[in-house]
Amino acid sequence: MNKPRFITFEGIDGSGKSTQSRRFADQLRAQGQDVVLTREPGGSPGAEEIRQLVLTGDPERWSPETEILLFTASRRDHLEKTIEPALAAGKTVISDRFADSTRVYQGATRGDLRAMVDNLHKLMIGREPDLTFIIDMDPATALERGLARKSGEDRFEDFGLGFQETLRHGFLALAHANPDRCILIDGNRTPDQIASEIAAYA
Amino acid sequence: MNKPRFITFEGIDGSGKSTQSRRFADQLRAQGQDVVLTREPGGSPGAEEIRQLVLTGDPERWSPETEILLFTASRRDHLEKTIEPALAAGKTVISDRFADSTRVYQGATRGDLRAMVDNLHKLMIGREPDLTFIIDMDPATALERGLARKSGEDRFEDFGLGFQETLRHGFLALAHANPDRCILIDGNRTPDQIASEIAAYA
Repeated sequence: MNKPRFITFEGIDGSGKSTQSRRFADQLRAQGQDVVLTREPGGSPGAEEIRQLVLTGDPERWSPETEILLFTASRRDHLEKTIEPALAAGKTVISDRFADSTRVYQGATRGDLRAMVDNLHKLMIGREPDLTFIIDMDPATALERGLARKSGEDRFEDFGLGFQETLRHGFLALAHANPDRCILIDGNRTPDQIASEIAAYA
Repeated sequence: MNKPRFITFEGIDGSGKSTQSRRFADQLRAQGQDVVLTREPGGSPGAEEIRQLVLTGDPERWSPETEILLFTASRRDHLEKTIEPALAAGKTVISDRFADSTRVYQGATRGDLRAMVDNLHKLMIGREPDLTFIIDMDPATALERGLARKSGEDRFEDFGLGFQETLRHGFLALAHANPDRCILIDGNRTPDQIASEIAAYA
């Protein structure tokens, strides 16, 4: 048996990440693999509670640094309670977002915190995915198609198109910096076209 | 004007920390200083909420690592919202417990996590007190005097006398390792005797 894989999907809101991660999970299951499909923020009951604590109340009440600590606590719980046990049981794990989202979102809002995010990840999370699909998409197209919608990163939605463009470039930079695990996928196509490209990595 | 000081009181439950920190605050106030008396866990509304999240529900639901992350988030909030603003305004800050408690409690329960605690502190907190009173007390005496009682570290109370002894030695080791800021105080005396020794540091 092959070593079970930890696979993540990343990209801006409306890039089709969730659809594609679900389709890829279905494909692997059809091939007989045992697949756990999960997502961030959240992915375990404890992680979800921490996320609620971050998102409720005055949005200004947590500093970016405290927020990064809370999201890291949430990710640690997700990793311990959902991801690691599944991999240990020989299952494939597919997560809609993981640490790359924190790198890109925090890097886009407060660039000076990127080193802190990286150090905290190294210290408390450690794990990187075996394979990451970064779905690249023009934010203007995503908006036109009505794909952009309320998501787990609600608070970032009001920053507008310029901010989405910054995020897009953050994900592109990550893909280029991590060619060993990242596959850049052109999201400006139909879901079927995109799924058939991803299908080759089953 | 002197640089405002950040002063902490540390020690096992029942050592008289809270009493002595209150008395020292009163003394400094009587001398005309503006003093903020605070405590951990908690010390700011956000920190208190995080603490509630850690302490409610099944005590086994958070791993030690996730707990350390949550306590560090709580401390970061306490530092940003209570301690730093007070010092910036020229006030003296006295805290009943701070980072030394995490070092000693985590070191006593899971010694292998001490390096993680230290690295996380360096990365996300940074600040050390200018002066730390470590009140040393024989745990058996504390129990005899009926001083040991429910505190912010409730979960540790059932570990018994042997565990309290381990904690005591953890605090002693900290005092010896940080002679620049730590003053070891013999807590096996009357509150008046102890207070008059501490009074010399006003």
